[in-house]
Amino acid sequence: MESIESDTDLAGKIEKRISESTIRRLSLYLRALSLLDKKGVKTISSKELASREKLTPAQVRKDLSFFGSFGTRGLGYPVSELRSEIAGILGINRIWKVALFGVGNIGSAMVSYKEFARQGFQIVKLFDNDQRKIGSNHKGIIVSDVSNLEPEIKEAGIEIAIIGVPATVAQYIVDDIVAAGIKAILNFAPINLKVPSDVYLRNENMSMELEYLSFAMVNNHSEKKTKP
Amino acid sequence: MESIESDTDLAGKIEKRISESTIRRLSLYLRALSLLDKKGVKTISSKELASREKLTPAQVRKDLSFFGSFGTRGLGYPVSELRSEIAGILGINRIWKVALFGVGNIGSAMVSYKEFARQGFQIVKLFDNDQRKIGSNHKGIIVSDVSNLEPEIKEAGIEIAIIGVPATVAQYIVDDIVAAGIKAILNFAPINLKVPSDVYLRNENMSMELEYLSFAMVNNHSEKKTKP
Repeated sequence: MESIESDTDLAGKIEKRISESTIRRLSLYLRALSLLDKKGVKTISSKELASREKLTPAQVRKDLSFFGSFGTRGLGYPVSELRSEIAGILGINRIWKVALFGVGNIGSAMVSYKEFARQGFQIVKLFDNDQRKIGSNHKGIIVSDVSNLEPEIKEAGIEIAIIGVPATVAQYIVDDIVAAGIKAILNFAPINLKVPSDVYLRNENMSMELEYLSFAMVNNHSEKKTKP
Repeated sequence: MESIESDTDLAGKIEKRISESTIRRLSLYLRALSLLDKKGVKTISSKELASREKLTPAQVRKDLSFFGSFGTRGLGYPVSELRSEIAGILGINRIWKVALFGVGNIGSAMVSYKEFARQGFQIVKLFDNDQRKIGSNHKGIIVSDVSNLEPEIKEAGIEIAIIGVPATVAQYIVDDIVAAGIKAILNFAPINLKVPSDVYLRNENMSMELEYLSFAMVNNHSEKKTKP
């Protein structure tokens, strides 16, 4: 197993400077600023931005200070400019070509999810191993055979792969994707995938937020019962 | 706006004892332990569990110590028992009746997502405002008219709502859902919803993990360029 490592090493290099939580908050700020920008709001204070995201103004100022000096004391941050700056920091001021593996329910939802394209993540290739799906047109994209992924990925200039296949086959497909040169993978399969140390891997756990809700309800419930 | 607050207050009470990050990690442990249990693995050390989730063994021990004393020094944690304990902590050792609002792409994916049911989150009601969808059978559930949600929610014993409607109508629907007595909402719409202080609200941002990947690639890329 010596040649197979997690994505910790490379991620570690970045995290020394910017923590994962900061990156998550930048995504939140970006979304909030995009909504404000669409509404025509010109400036926002760190206090307002913090209150929208249930954070402290100090936290917002600290996160943004990482990247240089934004905004003017007393006037707040310019919404559109700050939005562009954060988009640049997150690397989404450009187009990323994305391939999706597994045209099942999750896969279909991802193809139709308009937010991705708005953020610059363009799903341009679909792959499946089901002969009934291969060759069919799915939201304007012809489904390709996963057994021949390498030339198609290279030709299309794919840089990110989304894994929407069942857990039982996910590792085999990921091995092929990595062999084809992909360095960034978003995984929806409920399995711990192994990738080389120069490949970034993120896992999407759809149950996590629901589990947070059930935790909150169960704990609030018992608090109410124990503290009359 | 005085009667309308965020979910910060109630969440705050819990977070004094257990942070959001701890709850997120418990979800990760639960998923890892479920996979191990399915494979027939009987015990796991904090070191192994930590390494699977890219955490330190000390972090794992600290998280689990919150809830009592699990495992035996030198022998590790009993997989199946620890899984059950964490499920109990997260409040998923029971069935939660869930209603889904908006039978579009995200909604359809959620209904078909088998992990939810496995974790005890049963989607038993679907609502939409599209006359072409109302009354149709969607994966065995008849789609109901969202304009008549209260009696149906009460009759079905719904405790959690998932919002898969467009951002433009999400707040109106959420106001009705809250009026019908729902205390837990998972929101997929890219909008900042307002809910009363006794309602738990979580937002699912599907772009966040992709933004983490683009951030990592852009930063790694520039590191490579600046450090030859």
